[in-house]
Amino acid sequence: MRAEIINIGDELLIGQVVNTNQSYIAEKLNAVGINVCKMTTVGDNECDIIQAFDLAYNTYDVVVVTGGLGPTHDDVTRSAVCRFFNSDLVLNEEALANIRNFFAQRKKEPRKINEDQALVPRDCVVFQNKIGIAPGYLFKRDNKFFIVLPGVPVEMKLMLEECVIPFFKKVETGLIIRHLTIKTTGIAESFLAEEIGSVEDILLNDENASLAFLPSTYGVWLRVTVKGKTAEEVEDKLNQIERRIRRKIEKYIYSTDEKELEEVVGELLKQENLTLSIAESCTGGLIADRITNVPGSSEYFKTGVVTYSNESKIYELGVPLELIKKHGAVSKEVAESMAFGIRTKANTDIGLSTTGIAGPSGGSPEKPVGLVWIGYSDRYCTMALQYNFGGLRRTIKERASQACLELLRRKLLKIEI
Amino acid sequence: MRAEIINIGDELLIGQVVNTNQSYIAEKLNAVGINVCKMTTVGDNECDIIQAFDLAYNTYDVVVVTGGLGPTHDDVTRSAVCRFFNSDLVLNEEALANIRNFFAQRKKEPRKINEDQALVPRDCVVFQNKIGIAPGYLFKRDNKFFIVLPGVPVEMKLMLEECVIPFFKKVETGLIIRHLTIKTTGIAESFLAEEIGSVEDILLNDENASLAFLPSTYGVWLRVTVKGKTAEEVEDKLNQIERRIRRKIEKYIYSTDEKELEEVVGELLKQENLTLSIAESCTGGLIADRITNVPGSSEYFKTGVVTYSNESKIYELGVPLELIKKHGAVSKEVAESMAFGIRTKANTDIGLSTTGIAGPSGGSPEKPVGLVWIGYSDRYCTMALQYNFGGLRRTIKERASQACLELLRRKLLKIEI
Repeated sequence: MRAEIINIGDELLIGQVVNTNQSYIAEKLNAVGINVCKMTTVGDNECDIIQAFDLAYNTYDVVVVTGGLGPTHDDVTRSAVCRFFNSDLVLNEEALANIRNFFAQRKKEPRKINEDQALVPRDCVVFQNKIGIAPGYLFKRDNKFFIVLPGVPVEMKLMLEECVIPFFKKVETGLIIRHLTIKTTGIAESFLAEEIGSVEDILLNDENASLAFLPSTYGVWLRVTVKGKTAEEVEDKLNQIERRIRRKIEKYIYSTDEKELEEVVGELLKQENLTLSIAESCTGGLIADRITNVPGSSEYFKTGVVTYSNESKIYELGVPLELIKKHGAVSKEVAESMAFGIRTKANTDIGLSTTGIAGPSGGSPEKPVGLVWIGYSDRYCTMALQYNFGGLRRTIKERASQACLELLRRKLLKIEI
Repeated sequence: MRAEIINIGDELLIGQVVNTNQSYIAEKLNAVGINVCKMTTVGDNECDIIQAFDLAYNTYDVVVVTGGLGPTHDDVTRSAVCRFFNSDLVLNEEALANIRNFFAQRKKEPRKINEDQALVPRDCVVFQNKIGIAPGYLFKRDNKFFIVLPGVPVEMKLMLEECVIPFFKKVETGLIIRHLTIKTTGIAESFLAEEIGSVEDILLNDENASLAFLPSTYGVWLRVTVKGKTAEEVEDKLNQIERRIRRKIEKYIYSTDEKELEEVVGELLKQENLTLSIAESCTGGLIADRITNVPGSSEYFKTGVVTYSNESKIYELGVPLELIKKHGAVSKEVAESMAFGIRTKANTDIGLSTTGIAGPSGGSPEKPVGLVWIGYSDRYCTMALQYNFGGLRRTIKERASQACLELLRRKLLKIEI
């Protein structure tokens, strides 16, 4: 099946917002064997919207529309959908209950414009919005599928994953496409490519298999794509390719199941029944934020401190003043002292630390922007490693947070560092 | 003038890459008075590309195309352009010199496929690529402008800024467009719409002015757009509209200059020469992370702690055990004690705190997921406010972080809470 994605919103056309919905939807549709052939973005204008609907519906089997379902005057997608399908609006009781519940949870009264969002086009499947207000719709007409979702990314994602993708998994698309994402960190793209060697060899010289390198601040992801007629054939090939890749670069791989590094280390800590604390300087709370994004992290994560001043390094962590005076706050000695300090003070099995220069100011020829020391302490060993990260402030924070979590992963798995 | 942007590339259609070129080009075109009405993405397929060219060229005055200009077999944009304009290829000497120079700098020999990139369509303006290889083109036909740029973001951006935008600055577009983004938080979209009342009134009944509501987890942004013949007329109208909006919803507005809330409170703290510390439970370090994203934040931000366990609330912040036993960790009393504790312990002017239930587990009928207490303490007052946020774990963390920074902003500006 072939598809077009249509995103609606003036904010996209003036460049105020980067359209992240597009790639997200494309990836998910691809994974269930739907070939996305075109993406279109139009503004909150009923004529333009209907024209885009018309073109897409006449050309493709699947049309996925997002945006313009809000309650205010500038949201016109619902009325465009009604005009396009020559439909009127009917009250959806479940959506109304959902909206009232949404406001009740927030101890507020819904307005009429909110309750009106429970009016949906007649004769479509209605997707309830579990975390927002606007419901989504699915029209099945002339062997085609026309889907309308909210534009708010979190709402769109949940509805896509819980309603749309399961729906298409049941539809026969005639082609099995599977992607495997192998997440690596701690090695640059070109070095990874060198370690892997011949791509044709890795892919078993199979023209239905492909490999892509996706670099980001958190590492390089390898995406393997295999197409085929049956699920078994495709899974089998994917497994073979994964084994070949693992043989070459095993130690850099932290996940092959879409998990983030903070989830991977969280699971390891839980398995080993270990507790963790962290003292952050240059990463400013980002590592604690990432660790606590994982549900259940309170089981192993006890205390984080962001010691942004020398004073707080001294009184929060017991770093000796002389150590800072002698080596500077950004040094191996201070990183080790911070990791040891937080571990003993918070009474946890492991302590981590970061201290570095995130920039844009504060750098010097000896200690340039991007220099970061990462410390680790457990009851057997206290150590620190030096890193030199490129990029702007935020990028340096992100790279340092990833390096810190990766150091923890390798320590937990006793992998060479 | 009205425009369409066309981006070409299979990597976009499978969702492997987020299309950041789109919004970048749109913003730049808007700034020179070109109205972007549509954006289209197609794959590296000559038929699809020509179809997209055809539709865009027949509808709009300006078409900007990116991508598919590389040297390998999968790049077909150049030949599609030639077919579309019924043109052949000619050698561009300057482009050839540029390519040879590019390789010489890297101490390598160009291959024939690289040198062939100096072949460009006949009868167009050629834009040289200063940091890459593929040149860009501009066709001026039938009073329309058709522009083709490389897809690599850095190359596209440089060519757009140095060649395309200066070109359009000289063309009379006959229209000035200005946008103003008014960022609000602490009020839901529908309530904000109610406070603002008649949109026509706010917009001075001017059909060249428009207002859009853009909700996100951090608040609702209002975008005012004004079009006109002269810069003065447009600026004047924009100012009038801003004043009218401010009169209605002043206290919810934290920025009209694209600044994030953490930058706004950072500037206020600097102005007042105040220092800040924070104790986070449910936000898990996110607030410290946001505060430290601002360069120079070490001037006012001293210490953050993430007290994820009851023990750490007690020993890090001096929260009395009895208080936790009596009221629970998620309570007004504990939030206040945390804010007071971190302020006095870190010896800062202001202390902030969060304690809540981020979910998905840990909720109860009395204390459901999404319940968050936010505490504030300075030398005159210690207080806490209750919030009920909807959404998943990450959304609750984000909303709580924004509410906490907004509480700080209002306290610093002595705005009613």
